[in-house]
Amino acid sequence: MIIVGGTATNGIDERLAKITKSKLVKVVHKVFPDGESYVRVPEPLTGEEVAVVQTTQPPQNKNLVELLLVLEALKDTGATKITAVVPYLAYSRQDRRFLDGEAISVKTVLNLIYAAGASTLVVVEPHHPESLSYFPGEARVVDPIPALGRELRGRVNSPFVLAPDRGAVDRAERLARELGCGYTYLEKERDRITGEIRVRGISIGSLKGRDVILVDDIVSTGGTLVEASKVAYSLGAEGVYAAAVHLLMVKDTLTRLKEAGVRDLVGVNTVVPQDNVKLVDVSDLIALKL
Amino acid sequence: MIIVGGTATNGIDERLAKITKSKLVKVVHKVFPDGESYVRVPEPLTGEEVAVVQTTQPPQNKNLVELLLVLEALKDTGATKITAVVPYLAYSRQDRRFLDGEAISVKTVLNLIYAAGASTLVVVEPHHPESLSYFPGEARVVDPIPALGRELRGRVNSPFVLAPDRGAVDRAERLARELGCGYTYLEKERDRITGEIRVRGISIGSLKGRDVILVDDIVSTGGTLVEASKVAYSLGAEGVYAAAVHLLMVKDTLTRLKEAGVRDLVGVNTVVPQDNVKLVDVSDLIALKL
Repeated sequence: MIIVGGTATNGIDERLAKITKSKLVKVVHKVFPDGESYVRVPEPLTGEEVAVVQTTQPPQNKNLVELLLVLEALKDTGATKITAVVPYLAYSRQDRRFLDGEAISVKTVLNLIYAAGASTLVVVEPHHPESLSYFPGEARVVDPIPALGRELRGRVNSPFVLAPDRGAVDRAERLARELGCGYTYLEKERDRITGEIRVRGISIGSLKGRDVILVDDIVSTGGTLVEASKVAYSLGAEGVYAAAVHLLMVKDTLTRLKEAGVRDLVGVNTVVPQDNVKLVDVSDLIALKL
Repeated sequence: MIIVGGTATNGIDERLAKITKSKLVKVVHKVFPDGESYVRVPEPLTGEEVAVVQTTQPPQNKNLVELLLVLEALKDTGATKITAVVPYLAYSRQDRRFLDGEAISVKTVLNLIYAAGASTLVVVEPHHPESLSYFPGEARVVDPIPALGRELRGRVNSPFVLAPDRGAVDRAERLARELGCGYTYLEKERDRITGEIRVRGISIGSLKGRDVILVDDIVSTGGTLVEASKVAYSLGAEGVYAAAVHLLMVKDTLTRLKEAGVRDLVGVNTVVPQDNVKLVDVSDLIALKL
């Protein structure tokens, strides 16, 4: 197998080549003055099985189009089996139709990746793993939670894992298993008479002295975590930490999290945010899926 | 037929609906804070033939991805026959491989438009019309030169059309026919001994008193036209004008053209540049191809 490093890899291509003892071929790329992307696979890969690494972190559309260009260039250069390693899959939150006529964008993206030439797809923690069934080829999911768990283990005391909503409870369960602690998800109810906030399965004060770890897949503006942090403190948390997979960190997100009492945030290197945040490398977990 | 207005139309969708007396449905769209695009077709189009208008002017990758999202949403909403009207087709200059391993980007783009659901494609003046043969469906080309000719007719005296290179000579021929004048293309040769510049088919001084119209398909940085303008004046041109189709006008292009003596520049509304340039509407010519 040959590892092909795309135009946005966060170093995962180099680590994958090292871990799997494979040759690395880096795509040559540039952007023309008018904004069009140019890509070139600088070596013939006739008859080779290749795994191309390209994350679709922001700017998502540019990185996605460049992935599609690279896939077709690989097909043209004679690669036999093409695996697309897309650590962060853009558009994965748009995986259902809330209103008639909406694009199920992740379906379009997955179909395009297949149409451009990838028969296998490897994605780290998609928003909903079921949505990968839109990919017409074989899709494999990388679970990055063990890596986050290892990173957090030494940082927290008496941990408890809290998912900010029901959709993230599976992630909370996985992280709690790594840390050997309890978990639940936030389902806020405000008592209409007393105004008191209740959280499913947690009584007030029961988090006293515990370090609460909020867990989510994507941090965009951070609004969800800010809200959850406040609730965790109101329930008696000693400290609040956040573990998330893909840190998009749109604007002043880290500042807002700190202001909401989040003591530390860790993520993985599927996305490299502008903020200075500890990122855990998941190349070894990706390599297991190749 | 129903005209669907995409996220980048330059008003062509509205004019097409008027000209063809068709209903217009405008796509609802926005960009999420993290940079992902959202599109929605707000009316069910079950069983309808639709023509979706979406130009892929800069930012090309965003407009291209949004076109692909709209196409799949249209397919999902039950449209039977989908025509993609792409007035400016991005990546059309990357239509051959100059070095091994390069992406033939226009091929990828055309395959993706087809894969996303368009069976017919309408493009205004692609860089090389032959490249549309990569589109697996039916491709139709709109010739905008008659519209440019009409616009120029009253502005120039004793015109002569000059293509800046051999590749644009077909365009020069079409424009010259509209204006009823002569044409040629620049093939510069510098005499190694005298340093004199010769241009194929033009002797020095033969353009004396003539208004020379430079013609090209795409103006990006304007470098080609700047160079051609200087040559035209050196050959005796009274005034130099430029007619081009797609005005990308990357950066200070208009200023650079003016400094090189280009008195006026006209283009068409397939691309709306930031510079204030006269744009001719080509909706009526597009309508003929629907």
